[in-house]
Amino acid sequence: MGASREHDLIARYFAPLAGPEGLGLLDDAALLAPRAGHEWVITTDALVAGVHFFADDPAEIIAGKALRVNLSDLAAKGARPRAFTLALMLPQGLEPGWFEGFAKGLGADMARFGIALIGGDTVATTGPLALTITAFGEVGEGRMVTRSGAVSGDAIYVSGTIGDAALGLVCLKSPDRLALAARHRRHLEARYHRPEPRMALGAALRTHAHAAMDVSDGLVGDLGRLLAASGQGGIIEAAAVPFSPAVHAALSLEPTLEETALTGGDDYEIISCVPPHACSAFEQDCARAGVKITRIGVVQAHRLITWRAADGSAMSFASPAYSHL
Amino acid sequence: MGASREHDLIARYFAPLAGPEGLGLLDDAALLAPRAGHEWVITTDALVAGVHFFADDPAEIIAGKALRVNLSDLAAKGARPRAFTLALMLPQGLEPGWFEGFAKGLGADMARFGIALIGGDTVATTGPLALTITAFGEVGEGRMVTRSGAVSGDAIYVSGTIGDAALGLVCLKSPDRLALAARHRRHLEARYHRPEPRMALGAALRTHAHAAMDVSDGLVGDLGRLLAASGQGGIIEAAAVPFSPAVHAALSLEPTLEETALTGGDDYEIISCVPPHACSAFEQDCARAGVKITRIGVVQAHRLITWRAADGSAMSFASPAYSHL
Repeated sequence: MGASREHDLIARYFAPLAGPEGLGLLDDAALLAPRAGHEWVITTDALVAGVHFFADDPAEIIAGKALRVNLSDLAAKGARPRAFTLALMLPQGLEPGWFEGFAKGLGADMARFGIALIGGDTVATTGPLALTITAFGEVGEGRMVTRSGAVSGDAIYVSGTIGDAALGLVCLKSPDRLALAARHRRHLEARYHRPEPRMALGAALRTHAHAAMDVSDGLVGDLGRLLAASGQGGIIEAAAVPFSPAVHAALSLEPTLEETALTGGDDYEIISCVPPHACSAFEQDCARAGVKITRIGVVQAHRLITWRAADGSAMSFASPAYSHL
Repeated sequence: MGASREHDLIARYFAPLAGPEGLGLLDDAALLAPRAGHEWVITTDALVAGVHFFADDPAEIIAGKALRVNLSDLAAKGARPRAFTLALMLPQGLEPGWFEGFAKGLGADMARFGIALIGGDTVATTGPLALTITAFGEVGEGRMVTRSGAVSGDAIYVSGTIGDAALGLVCLKSPDRLALAARHRRHLEARYHRPEPRMALGAALRTHAHAAMDVSDGLVGDLGRLLAASGQGGIIEAAAVPFSPAVHAALSLEPTLEETALTGGDDYEIISCVPPHACSAFEQDCARAGVKITRIGVVQAHRLITWRAADGSAMSFASPAYSHL
């Protein structure tokens, strides 16, 4: 892209969104001053049209999703959102209305989640629209919740409900596949388009959890990664995994979609591992924060991970590793 | 990309490069603890194949360039490189050898410039290869050199030589256009492929410069942006702009390429504005740092920017705003 077109886009759509730390997006760099006794938690997520969202999704939705998937990582680490940079790779032919929608969606979520745009880059691409966000969260020194701290005996929790977004994607890709009530379909598709980062869980995770991560690539795969990073295994009760009424409705139509729900991506819920003595306080703190959590299993010292079906038999999954779209 | 392929790529090629702050790239996030009395300078640059580099450039070159253009921004701000995140958008069909080359090139430059890989993301794209790097530099509190601090009367300096990379790109795109000696052609093409971030200038800039920025989109356009951000104008003597022997040789073959040299991109040299009383000390400090700098003009209070040719006439440029490739 020409330097002057980049300059115009930034001046018109993004500089008005930028916080003081972004220096009005007029400099090459942003400046981030830490508060005493705090550290920065840093996360990066890239999203590509046709892979992580549909190219014709509304620009507001794309902006919001790119920010929210990064916020979800900060939530899982117990970090408070502070700032982010945005790199936009733009195909030719996007109309001014697209940029207006993008800036509007981004600005609305920035205000809602209290995070400032401090810099970025805008370049041309001959490929699909792509975005990279790097987000900065603040956490008290030594207080970040890692992925690797789970200990044998910890209870395994998951927030919210699982599988909504994966089944929403099924509906979006094959609108005639499931004869769902309109409200269920809307719910599933909305969960795919607008993940809800669980920022409210931050304090409870910092206070009680040995380990946590957000579920972006499917519960089965991501929980496997958390346990592997912790050098542990575990037993998970599939019947305990929380499903929404819409997912239950979809599974009653097509029971084999249970695997999609458990292994599909884009949940953006939080898995956490909490020692037994802290479970009751953790549950109370989450309830006070207004976020539903559900205990689904237990961490065990050997490295085996067993998913147990309602009848007690061990489950296996055809493709525990999730591919987007 | 499948989550397990992403996991394999990270484990095999990138985790070995990651510093301790990257938590072995096993977590969702990195942790960056500031030193007392310091701030983070943050910069983001995105590069797309076919726009910022050639898709068939060696992977080592691509990795190095992506890191170096970000380092150049840190250099211009007087910041010491510390860490970076890398988001890779990968087309299908890249061979293991490509990743080996990429990791090798990245690792070599990480060692050379003393910067740690602390996180990132790896996703699939149906488009060209693209990369986003967000780099973190450290600077003493309040010591970042901004783009907006130039004051009337400041001398305008530029480091190194200008136009090499833009003419290198001319050679790469039209190998038969210029009948240059092989050593000149090699020099120009190398400057395009391997920018040399001027990290050694950091202390001199922090100590003496009112304003600085790196030249990524052409000297004419970028100097214009610095002066505009400072609310100033200036007079620049085109004859004073430092050219390498290879650029001189190219201009003697095709004099109209002077505009390409002055307005073309990818120089990654540093423009700085230094008050008159500090010029002599600044020049000495740069000489001690081993980086050539050249005084090319003066900042003036009115907002007009005049480029003066050797005969004293005002120059104009057909396309001061640079487009990559």
